[in-house]
Amino acid sequence: MNAQLPTTPDTTPLAIICGAGSLPFAVADAAVRGGRRVVLFALKGAADAERMTGYPHHWVRIGQFGSIRRIARTEGCRDVVFIGSLIRPTIRQLWPDFTTLFLVPRLIRLLRGGDNRLLLGVTEIFEENGFRLIGADQVAPEIRMPRGALGRRAPIERDWADIKCGLALLHATGPFDVGQAVVVADNRILAMEAAEGTDEMLAHLAEMRRNGRVRSPVGVGVLVKAPKPGQDRRVDLPAIGPATIEGVANAGLAGIAVVAGSAIVAEAERMAAVADSAKIFVIGIDADGTRDA
Amino acid sequence: MNAQLPTTPDTTPLAIICGAGSLPFAVADAAVRGGRRVVLFALKGAADAERMTGYPHHWVRIGQFGSIRRIARTEGCRDVVFIGSLIRPTIRQLWPDFTTLFLVPRLIRLLRGGDNRLLLGVTEIFEENGFRLIGADQVAPEIRMPRGALGRRAPIERDWADIKCGLALLHATGPFDVGQAVVVADNRILAMEAAEGTDEMLAHLAEMRRNGRVRSPVGVGVLVKAPKPGQDRRVDLPAIGPATIEGVANAGLAGIAVVAGSAIVAEAERMAAVADSAKIFVIGIDADGTRDA
Repeated sequence: MNAQLPTTPDTTPLAIICGAGSLPFAVADAAVRGGRRVVLFALKGAADAERMTGYPHHWVRIGQFGSIRRIARTEGCRDVVFIGSLIRPTIRQLWPDFTTLFLVPRLIRLLRGGDNRLLLGVTEIFEENGFRLIGADQVAPEIRMPRGALGRRAPIERDWADIKCGLALLHATGPFDVGQAVVVADNRILAMEAAEGTDEMLAHLAEMRRNGRVRSPVGVGVLVKAPKPGQDRRVDLPAIGPATIEGVANAGLAGIAVVAGSAIVAEAERMAAVADSAKIFVIGIDADGTRDA
Repeated sequence: MNAQLPTTPDTTPLAIICGAGSLPFAVADAAVRGGRRVVLFALKGAADAERMTGYPHHWVRIGQFGSIRRIARTEGCRDVVFIGSLIRPTIRQLWPDFTTLFLVPRLIRLLRGGDNRLLLGVTEIFEENGFRLIGADQVAPEIRMPRGALGRRAPIERDWADIKCGLALLHATGPFDVGQAVVVADNRILAMEAAEGTDEMLAHLAEMRRNGRVRSPVGVGVLVKAPKPGQDRRVDLPAIGPATIEGVANAGLAGIAVVAGSAIVAEAERMAAVADSAKIFVIGIDADGTRDA
C-alpha cells in the first residue's frame, strides 16, 4: 500500500485571510458546509476578535508574510482566500517579519499605485510561494449577489435612469483603478468613491446633507456599485452588507444597485429584511444596466 | 442734436451677481480700473456682507429673478457677470418672486441634472430677458491663472506623473457633468470631487487621513483642477484661492495644478506668498499636462 497523504486541493484545509466584517465567517461557514476544513488567519486591527473564537484561527499582522507562510504550510493549506475589508496600509504600518523584509522594496513599488495593482502584487507573492489564491465566491457561491431585488422594494423609472448614469460613470473611471461606487440622484453625481471606501463615502454624503453643503431631495438617489474592469475577482470583490443599507438610508437615498454575480453579500436573507425595514431597495442588475425581467 | 442716451455696452454699468468669497470684489475692482461702473447684486446667504459695503450693491435672494431684472433695468445694466461660489439650491430653498414663479417648472427640470445643465438654463433665462452674460475673466483678464508656478516651488518628477494621471481622470469624467477636481498621490486617486466642492473634498481628505481611513505619505500628492468639456466659461470657471492652499496643506499634499487660463485666481500675488509659506506649489499647466518650459 502507498502511504502518501491525501494532498489534493479539496482535502487540504482552506486558509482564509480575514479582514473586517462578517464576510470572512460567511465564507468559512460555506466552506465547512461543503465539507472542507478551514484555518482562519485573523489580521490584527481588522478581523472581528469575538466571532473569531468560534473558528480555528491564528492572529497575524498584515506584513508578516513569513509567519503566514509558515503557519499555512504547517497546517497543510494550499488554497488561500482573501476576504473582508481592510484599510490600505502604508509601508510604515507594515510590521515586516524576516521573510517580508526581503519583499519591502517590492511592496514600496506596489504601494505606488491603485488598489488593483497592490492586490495583484500580493497575489503574485502568495503564488510564487506555492499557494493558490481562489475567490471567496468560488468557495461560497451562495454569497454572490443574485439578479433582481433582495427585498420587497424595486427601483422606479427615475431610479433606473440614475442606475444607468452611475454605471456609465463607473465604466469611464474603471481604467483608473479608483473606487467602485458612485451616488447618483436625478442624474446628478452626488458622490464618487476614491480611497475612502463605500461606507465612508455614504457617511460623508449624509453629513454634507445635514450641514447643507449638498442639497438634494430626500428619498431620491441610488448607490451604484460595479466591479472595475481588470479587477482580480479573487482578492477584491465589491461587497454590500447591512452597514451599506444603513449608510444609504442615512444619506437619504432610495436604494442600492449592484452588478449581479460580481458583488458579494454576506447574509442575503438578513439583508432583505433590513432593506425592507429601512424602505430601501437592493437590486442585482446586469453590467449594462438592463433591468430584471 | 440727438438726445439719445449713450447705451453701448461699454458705458452701461456692469451687473455683478455675487456669490461667496473674494472673487466678486476682484472682478469689480478690475472693471472699475478699466473705467466701467459696477452694480453688485449680493446673493443672500452667500456674498460677503462686510466687503459689500464698499461697493454700490443690492441684496437679492437667489430665486428672485424678477427683482434682479427690475433693479438691473433701473440701473441701466445690460451686461451681467456671475461670480463667486454658491451652494446649489434645492427648489424649496428658492424664494421665487412673482416673475420667477412662472419659471418654477423650468427650474425643477433644470435641477434634475448636473451643474452644467443648471447653469446653462439660468444663462438662457437671463439672455431671453435681454441681458448679455459675460465671463468674469473677460471683464478681468488679470484673474486668469497664468502658466507656470505662482510661488517659488514647482512640481518634481513624481508630481508631474500625478498631474498627468489626474488630468486623464478628469478628462474621462468630464462628460458626466461632475466635479472639476481630483487628488492623486503616487498614481493613486485619493479623492474625487462630486457635489461637495473642492474645499470640502480637501477637508474630508484631511479628516480621513487624521483618523487613518486613508493612508498615504505626507507631502505627496497633487490637487488637479481642470474645466469640464462643454463647461460654460461665463458662469462656471474653476477657481482657486488662499483657502485652496490651506486645504491642500491640511490634506498633506505637495501642491496644486490647474489648467492655465481656464481657472481663475483672486489675488495671484497674495496666493504666491501664501503658497510659499505653506511650502505648497501652485502651477498653471496646459490642458494636456505639458510642463511649463
